[in-house]
Amino acid sequence: MPTKITIQKIEKSHISEVDFNNLPFGEVFTDYMFECDYKNGAWQVPKIVPYHNISLAPSAKVFHYGQACFEGMKAYRDNQDKIWLFRPDENQKRINKSLKRLAMPEFPANYFMEGLTTLVNLEKDWIKQGEGNSLYLRPFAIATEAGVSASPANEYKFMIICSPAKAYFSGEVRVRIADKYSRSANGGTGFAKAAGNYAGQFYPQELAHKEGLQQVIWTDASTHQNIEEAGAMNVFFRINDTLYTAPTSDRILDGVTRKSLIDLAKLMGYKVEVRYVTVNELIACAKDGSLKEIFGAGTAAVISPVLGFSYKDEAYETPLPDNSYALKLKKHLTDIQTNKAEDPFGWRVLVE
Amino acid sequence: MPTKITIQKIEKSHISEVDFNNLPFGEVFTDYMFECDYKNGAWQVPKIVPYHNISLAPSAKVFHYGQACFEGMKAYRDNQDKIWLFRPDENQKRINKSLKRLAMPEFPANYFMEGLTTLVNLEKDWIKQGEGNSLYLRPFAIATEAGVSASPANEYKFMIICSPAKAYFSGEVRVRIADKYSRSANGGTGFAKAAGNYAGQFYPQELAHKEGLQQVIWTDASTHQNIEEAGAMNVFFRINDTLYTAPTSDRILDGVTRKSLIDLAKLMGYKVEVRYVTVNELIACAKDGSLKEIFGAGTAAVISPVLGFSYKDEAYETPLPDNSYALKLKKHLTDIQTNKAEDPFGWRVLVE
Repeated sequence: MPTKITIQKIEKSHISEVDFNNLPFGEVFTDYMFECDYKNGAWQVPKIVPYHNISLAPSAKVFHYGQACFEGMKAYRDNQDKIWLFRPDENQKRINKSLKRLAMPEFPANYFMEGLTTLVNLEKDWIKQGEGNSLYLRPFAIATEAGVSASPANEYKFMIICSPAKAYFSGEVRVRIADKYSRSANGGTGFAKAAGNYAGQFYPQELAHKEGLQQVIWTDASTHQNIEEAGAMNVFFRINDTLYTAPTSDRILDGVTRKSLIDLAKLMGYKVEVRYVTVNELIACAKDGSLKEIFGAGTAAVISPVLGFSYKDEAYETPLPDNSYALKLKKHLTDIQTNKAEDPFGWRVLVE
Repeated sequence: MPTKITIQKIEKSHISEVDFNNLPFGEVFTDYMFECDYKNGAWQVPKIVPYHNISLAPSAKVFHYGQACFEGMKAYRDNQDKIWLFRPDENQKRINKSLKRLAMPEFPANYFMEGLTTLVNLEKDWIKQGEGNSLYLRPFAIATEAGVSASPANEYKFMIICSPAKAYFSGEVRVRIADKYSRSANGGTGFAKAAGNYAGQFYPQELAHKEGLQQVIWTDASTHQNIEEAGAMNVFFRINDTLYTAPTSDRILDGVTRKSLIDLAKLMGYKVEVRYVTVNELIACAKDGSLKEIFGAGTAAVISPVLGFSYKDEAYETPLPDNSYALKLKKHLTDIQTNKAEDPFGWRVLVE
């Protein structure tokens, strides 16, 4: 059943004012946004409107009780000027898992997919050819109802905003492995892209920054031994010739890049084991030389090599090896995403 | 050093439109709000302005990364028409702990206290005499900076909004003791009044509601044996003639009502022990009759007797006993708050 998305046209695009050679991540937004309100127990007719500020009561529940979650996705332009999305069904399903965990109403799949493709079509000019260029897409939902009683809201807003992006170079990444702070609890919201999960990570991240480290790798809150994820990225370890990444759980985000890399690595003939790597094991492998590389996996940077880690008072270096699996996987995955390589898994979706 | 708070006057109060006999909690707001912006590395001059909507970019960080925290307080009018706050310094210190944990800038103590008292003075007419009447005060702070990169914001807004409140009757409260879902992790944000802590509790609470239970009592995420708090309330158990409540930790909110009740109970000659009660112990005490009462403690309801609890498939009743400590403590504490009883601890603060 097609959705009747209403479109309110702008008079003139502001694209000519944007310097596409100088795009800080997530700061420039396109001309339009997708918007859909939930009220009276139902999602209303979705619309695409000029990008605009949102006006909310100071008592709106998102400000007090954190009912907010999001997705991160990208659209790519290939060398034949076709526009592609990457596994959008995964994001559509995942935001509904996040919404459910936060007692927010699930968003209809057809609204999500049609909203997304209609919006991307309208914003095609913002998607540039060339390596690393993309249109970053941010679907998100917030509780808009006014009132400070501590209960789920009855009114919500689902939006998609778009930001043109260059290749995301995070510079040299070294990480701290958490031994005190935690990202999530058993039975908590760690598997969801819940807004509150991120706020809780910023302070420990800032402590890491002060040590010259760029990220925190989180461990389980009970023992601080099992290595989980990096908050904005899932984490892979290569020990000898095998790649390891933690199993998903109610504490760990089921990352689309993570699961794609598991399949792709196997296709490329790499051994992959989905199991916890413990801190003690990691340190032992770093010392005996069997730890070959560490990398993060996520939508924004696709793959970020991690060149070293610190645990308590010790620092360990993990320089990029000559035969880096991370760089090969990154090239292969981005080639699939941008229609330069075959897509044996059917991950690409043409936007028409 | 006095703060120069600017005040923008309204033309006419809307107080005459408000039915003070019918006030749902947290839905009606007064004429003014306190507002202070953080930018360029500093909190700007605070102001009191007419209550108004907030306009934010859809990319504002509060919507995506949950940098938001709050406090809950009350102002009371006594029989001589004096206006009182209750331990406002505790809320002032605690919101700074919350802000710090969420990588938000701490708010100056003098801005908080002078903003609060100036606002309460301006809104005196909204505070009514009589048992249970109060002006509920909600200080809170949100990240307002636009941009979807996952890092702490550089711009924030601190606000105080006010809502006239009647005695908060939550009806009969029975609770589910958590055995699967969790509220917080070791090293997480449980001790902070972080917005995201609340969103994560709503879904398990809704599951409890479907069973006819009103709240969830949270247990530690590792063993689900140690009873922690109820999310919007701390929890006390009376076993024989001793009151027990869990120690504060990085998982448990250091509630102002909780700590006041510990002191007050001792003053009233009750035995109090601050230690964990385990689920097994609670069930054993419910079975052998030594569990006399359970109650929640928080600003909104002051004390809420809990008349029963469910754990897994079993339900236990804990009816209010004749000689209820909960009801005596509630009367004594509210008498101190409203200047009907002596204040041996110096908790009341006159608003002049």
